Amino acid sequence: MQTELTWGDPGVPAILRAVGEQQPLVHCLTNIVVAQFTANALLAVGASPAMVENAEESGVFAGVAAAVLVNLGTLSAEREAAMHAAAASADVHGRPWVLDPVAVGALAHRTAFAENLLKLHPAVVRANPSEVMSLAGSRAAGRGVDSLAGSEEALSAATSLARQRGSVVAVSGAVDYVTDGIDVVAVPGGSPLLAQITGTGCALGALVAAFLAVESDALLAAASASAVFKMAGERAAVGEPGPGTFAVSLLDEMAALTRAASA
Amino acid sequence: MQTELTWGDPGVPAILRAVGEQQPLVHCLTNIVVAQFTANALLAVGASPAMVENAEESGVFAGVAAAVLVNLGTLSAEREAAMHAAAASADVHGRPWVLDPVAVGALAHRTAFAENLLKLHPAVVRANPSEVMSLAGSRAAGRGVDSLAGSEEALSAATSLARQRGSVVAVSGAVDYVTDGIDVVAVPGGSPLLAQITGTGCALGALVAAFLAVESDALLAAASASAVFKMAGERAAVGEPGPGTFAVSLLDEMAALTRAASA
Amino acid sequence: MQTELTWGDPGVPAILRAVGEQQPLVHCLTNIVVAQFTANALLAVGASPAMVENAEESGVFAGVAAAVLVNLGTLSAEREAAMHAAAASADVHGRPWVLDPVAVGALAHRTAFAENLLKLHPAVVRANPSEVMSLAGSRAAGRGVDSLAGSEEALSAATSLARQRGSVVAVSGAVDYVTDGIDVVAVPGGSPLLAQITGTGCALGALVAAFLAVESDALLAAASASAVFKMAGERAAVGEPGPGTFAVSLLDEMAALTRAASA
Repeated sequence: MQTELTWGDPGVPAILRAVGEQQPLVHCLTNIVVAQFTANALLAVGASPAMVENAEESGVFAGVAAAVLVNLGTLSAEREAAMHAAAASADVHGRPWVLDPVAVGALAHRTAFAENLLKLHPAVVRANPSEVMSLAGSRAAGRGVDSLAGSEEALSAATSLARQRGSVVAVSGAVDYVTDGIDVVAVPGGSPLLAQITGTGCALGALVAAFLAVESDALLAAASASAVFKMAGERAAVGEPGPGTFAVSLLDEMAALTRAASA
Repeated sequence: MQTELTWGDPGVPAILRAVGEQQPLVHCLTNIVVAQFTANALLAVGASPAMVENAEESGVFAGVAAAVLVNLGTLSAEREAAMHAAAASADVHGRPWVLDPVAVGALAHRTAFAENLLKLHPAVVRANPSEVMSLAGSRAAGRGVDSLAGSEEALSAATSLARQRGSVVAVSGAVDYVTDGIDVVAVPGGSPLLAQITGTGCALGALVAAFLAVESDALLAAASASAVFKMAGERAAVGEPGPGTFAVSLLDEMAALTRAASA
Repeated sequence: MQTELTWGDPGVPAILRAVGEQQPLVHCLTNIVVAQFTANALLAVGASPAMVENAEESGVFAGVAAAVLVNLGTLSAEREAAMHAAAASADVHGRPWVLDPVAVGALAHRTAFAENLLKLHPAVVRANPSEVMSLAGSRAAGRGVDSLAGSEEALSAATSLARQRGSVVAVSGAVDYVTDGIDVVAVPGGSPLLAQITGTGCALGALVAAFLAVESDALLAAASASAVFKMAGERAAVGEPGPGTFAVSLLDEMAALTRAASA
């Protein structure tokens, strides 16, 4: 069954309010490009970011964090060990974790690494269409970090991947689609400007982790994070700002939505 | 004896002016989340940032830099070797260095690493209350990078740590406290918004390093850096901006204070 | 022969328009300080950034990217291996690549590493005066990442380096000079504010790579990237903003110039 979710659905601000109240500790293993923006996005919604990325600590930390994000953007040998330790620990300790398989499909090494991580039961895989198609075994359309395929086109791949792995799959695009392999939630809205600054998809992955920390229904948590992100993007895009201004406003608007949800 | 220091004390702009005149080279070994903001904060006060983080170079570089910052946020095996080399070199060459023991207490590995670094005579330890309490041997209150304990509560731990180690200890909070184990300088002011963006504490650690480069009284240097930072935060918070706008304004206001100090 | 190039030269917007049309994939091996700003600068001119930095993947990726940037800011053992693999792959596959030898001259380790990379035929070396003088064998004037020498003073070193290596050399300063060892293009303009935020030189290196992807004349590509960057800097400096605001506006203005070029 396909339904639609937007900021206007009362359930969405309710989850955002819970994030602000519980201030979940979200352990992010992410990349050097987006780490700052991701941390600021988590703070803007009231979550508490941490970015431990060494193998000695990441497993321990994942066991005490409320949720974990593993983003494959800038891999290194040590980051891979830390990511594997964190995902394994989250799996063992029952902490929800999100896999963001950046550029999978375009590069064999990380595709194999992502396959290994998928065995550790991520609650949600958040990705671009080409990455989802690659992980689902459809033709690899990746040319790196951006995405050439439309998100509608990737929906059947997402459904297939969700069924294969038992994870919720969230595909980002002009419309975001979130599926558990049976139901599909479409999240429309947002702004083309979201694709004109770096790190928006990565920050959304972190928000999904924060929402999973307070909402055990992974489909609802992931779709709600998308709905918040798209509404913040719409509001930040008013007046057609340049990309520098838009990135600043996007954080402002996430914080404003969080305040509104808690009022 | 406890005294209070703010931007209004003539000594504070005087040190800031000296930073702008001498443009000290501040070698930062910091984390992937805050590196950009830290570099921009140093530039805003007229210092010259550099961020060499490999073991082959960091020791050499620490010996020629005017001051060094070691921030434990995102450790890796190589960063740890580089940090140790830099701290040891700074110690041998008589360069002041600042330890920012991010998330110490919450994680045994970095707590042990920080203990080792403390033997290399940091001029200043700048930390959150829970981190100071952990290093001082008080109960560990850490849950990662944020701080649950009030800064007043941590003052006795700071005094104890300063006496144990012979370092000045600066505890960040609603009021910052800086102590050499005997005297205490309280720095009030600032804004709650400073806790709503990532990297403000880390950037303050870098400013402390820059101030140490031009002022040999470590207690005065660290307290003055706090006073500048808090005044910039107050000014940037006027109008209650969102966190994205606040982060931008914070840099603007640091630069404006630097200009004002040099006028 | 020395000529001058500015935004007003019709060839400059033409290359910028080609970047927007072709959206070249620019593979950046850069540093933790400037990665986000660099990615956003590339997006602002319509290019597609990717920042793979591990040795297993960087060689493969450099072979499929349209251009490659290697920036030595924050070296690590693994980054060095990845940089060498990427440069070697770019060389073999005929992809243009840019070397940004940050802080060369000040540190023996990276100076030797840069010498090795120079054998792999970078299309363009983009650097500060002291870095160029160091690589050309002139007296090393480096004190880290900033530059003490004027760009005019470095012009003869740049010409010498270009002749030695067969690479175009671009020296940044109040006036940028770009030379292939025979001809020199001077690019005036810009703003002193460009030196008051981190990562502007590094981002320019990435723009040079993007321009090389669409323009095979390396001298023209590099000078045009400088001309775009300086014009964006001039426009962003109107009203003498603080450095935080300036950094945001710089991205806005790059995007505005890109729109104007495509109109």
